[in-house]
Parts: sequence; C-alpha cells; structure tokens
Amino acid sequence: MHERIWANWQDFVGKLDIYPMIRPYLETSQITIHEVPAKTCISNAADEGYRIVYILQGSVKVVSLTYRGIRILLDEIGVGSFSGHISRMRGYSFDANIIAETPCVYLEFPDQLFCQLMENPAFALEFYRSTSSRTYQMYRKVFSLTLFTAEENTAMYCLMHPARLQSYTLDEICEEIGISRRSLCYVLKKWRKEGILKGKEKRDRIADHEQLMQIAEHIRQFYDIP
Amino acid sequence: MHERIWANWQDFVGKLDIYPMIRPYLETSQITIHEVPAKTCISNAADEGYRIVYILQGSVKVVSLTYRGIRILLDEIGVGSFSGHISRMRGYSFDANIIAETPCVYLEFPDQLFCQLMENPAFALEFYRSTSSRTYQMYRKVFSLTLFTAEENTAMYCLMHPARLQSYTLDEICEEIGISRRSLCYVLKKWRKEGILKGKEKRDRIADHEQLMQIAEHIRQFYDIP
Repeated sequence: MHERIWANWQDFVGKLDIYPMIRPYLETSQITIHEVPAKTCISNAADEGYRIVYILQGSVKVVSLTYRGIRILLDEIGVGSFSGHISRMRGYSFDANIIAETPCVYLEFPDQLFCQLMENPAFALEFYRSTSSRTYQMYRKVFSLTLFTAEENTAMYCLMHPARLQSYTLDEICEEIGISRRSLCYVLKKWRKEGILKGKEKRDRIADHEQLMQIAEHIRQFYDIP
Repeated sequence: MHERIWANWQDFVGKLDIYPMIRPYLETSQITIHEVPAKTCISNAADEGYRIVYILQGSVKVVSLTYRGIRILLDEIGVGSFSGHISRMRGYSFDANIIAETPCVYLEFPDQLFCQLMENPAFALEFYRSTSSRTYQMYRKVFSLTLFTAEENTAMYCLMHPARLQSYTLDEICEEIGISRRSLCYVLKKWRKEGILKGKEKRDRIADHEQLMQIAEHIRQFYDIP
C-alpha cells in the first residue's frame, strides 16, 4: 500500500526543500506516506504525542471542541505545510482534532524522529518558517472572537464567503465562525427582520450589502479588508 | 549617553547567542542600546514599522487597546527575548503598545537591518526559537477569553495571583485578565454576595478558596494547572 502511494509521490517529495534532510528516513520507512479520503480524522485530541504531518495533497482542518460543546475551526492547512499537535511541543494543548477536508496525501513523522530533525538547524528553520506565520493567523481569528460580537464576526464571515449561507449547514457555519448555534440563529433572525437577509433558512441571501458592511466596519479594519 | 550605557552592557551583550551576528552593527551603532525608566512607552500602536527590540534588563508589557476601549495584556516579555510589532512582519497588526513595566535596557533594530539579519539562517533560527513558544502562550490567553466566561477567567487570575486583588487597581486587573471593568465589577460583587470574597473593594481577600477552585475547574484543565 505505502509503496504504491510512494511510487506516485516520489518525484514531488524529491523537490521539497526538506527532502535532503528527511531522505534517509523516507528510505528506511521511518517517515511514512499516507493517503486518506475526505472527512478522515488524521489525529484527534485524545491521541498522545505531536503527530506531526506534512501535507502533500489536499487540505486539513484543525478543529477544537470546547468545554461548552462549541466546535471552533482553529486553522486550515494546505499543501506544503506542517500540521499536527504542534502547540504540544511547546507545552500547550488546545485539544484539537485534525480532519482531512478533502482527500489528502501526507507524510507522517514519528515523535522521536521529529524531535531529532528539529536539532538540525536547516530543518528547524524550514519548520518555523512554515508554521510561524500561521500562528499569527490563528491568533487573529481567536482574538477577533474576543474583540467583536457574534454579529460582527458573522457579518465578516458573510462578506468573506457570501455563498456559504446557502451551501453550508448551520453547524458548519458556526464551526467556521467559532460561535454557538444559538448565537448564529439569533443573528440570522435579527438580520431577516432588518431586511439584511431575504429568504428562509438555508435559502438566505444577502439583500442589503451596505448594512452588512456597516456592521462589519470595525472588524474589517482589524482584518485590514476595505 | 549611548556610550555610557554601552560600557555597562558590553560584557553581557558579548555573551549573547546572537552577538556574533549583530556585532558589526553594534560597532557602527546601527543597532542602538537604550535605557528607559518604568512606564515608558517603547513603541505605540500608531508607530510605523516593526520596531524590534531585544530586552537586556527588565520586562515589557504588550498591551492592545480594543475598539470597545478595553485594554488587553497580550504578552509580557523579559530578559533575553525579542519584542516589537513582530506580527506586522507577517502582515498582521494587533494595534499593540509596548510599555516598559520596570526600568529597561534594550537593543533596538532598525527595520531594514532587521530584515537583512533575518536572511541569515542562524539569526532567523534564534529569533524563531525565542518568539515561537510565546505566540502559543499569547494564543492560549486570548483563546481562554473566548472559551470561558469572565467569571471563570477572573477565578483563574485570582488563583494564579492571590495578592493582586489587594495590591492592584481594578483597571490593572481588568487589563491583565482582558475583560471590561464592568464585567470585573459584576463578578466581584457576585463573589462578595456568595461569600467567596470578604472585605470591601480594594480590601478583597479570598475567603472561600474551595469555591473559587470549583468555578475555575474547566479553565484550570485548559491551563493544565491542578
């Protein structure tokens, strides 16, 4: 199984910046290659260890299930990036589940080998370059949930992804925004009353773009989006 | 002025891991050394650029003033660490003010020179090592404001810093927790009623430690504190 996938991906992996550093461990199968269908849980919060992966194809979602039962999308990671319980390496744990959003192909690093690779300055630098920018993106997302109301966050989401009101379920939208279903329903109901949305649930479309822009005024500044 | 400070700090700076890389720029005074009293604003949100500093003595607070007028302590940085508008290097801005908490001595890097140093893998690695762990700490702090109520966050704060209820002003406590003054007053009033606190404002002391521990049950798990 691994060999068949490997045959397809050998050329691609050979061109990665990290290839010279990981090559010996690929050859001895200490670093393994995996192919999973969409919606597979690559690693869940209960798993021990770091479970570091490097995405070769597709994208994964990092989702945290909070004590109040709300699911929050923390991060979305695509080709050419590391994922896993990276915060655990630093002694933090955000109880995240890593779920394949699309069919995925990825490399998996055993914990001990990964720590050993991090002793190599060239590998460590590649790893930090790949992950450091994303931690700021994750930070901005969570910070905006503290700084702005559920309505402002929902307005921002609708401006960024106008089609999702129709194509996503309420649960999916809640998870992507990071608010409770109750808060989302309250906001949508309010907007229908105010004429910002037209149509029934699941058929909502934005009828008053101007007003939505106004609600999102401060959060747009925060996201630096005109 | 700079020369007098420099004479005192030359030995200390000479032992830093980054010294071999920054030495030529210290000698030509492109990297400058500064000594400031407590409460000095080292850089405010309105300043342009990255304003990267490296702390040699004392500690600084990174404080964001939100659109709702709430001040949130994002980070506290001590000796041997970088600070500045680091997130701006990644295209994010959290409108932070960097304020000396104690008397401070620090090195200041002009933006262009800092970018040039980041091209040096050895310097970049030192920088990432110093900053990457802290971004997770900042993340946890802000995430906990989303995950938990003002009461839970206040309970956690009181458990971590039991003396501050008496020695800090309400404004200082709000800023450190990251909640509004109104929320804090509401929580303290509730706790006085429930007998968790005894004494009047500014003389509050924890009278029912057990109940505080119970309020903070989930947030203690999140912070991994027994």
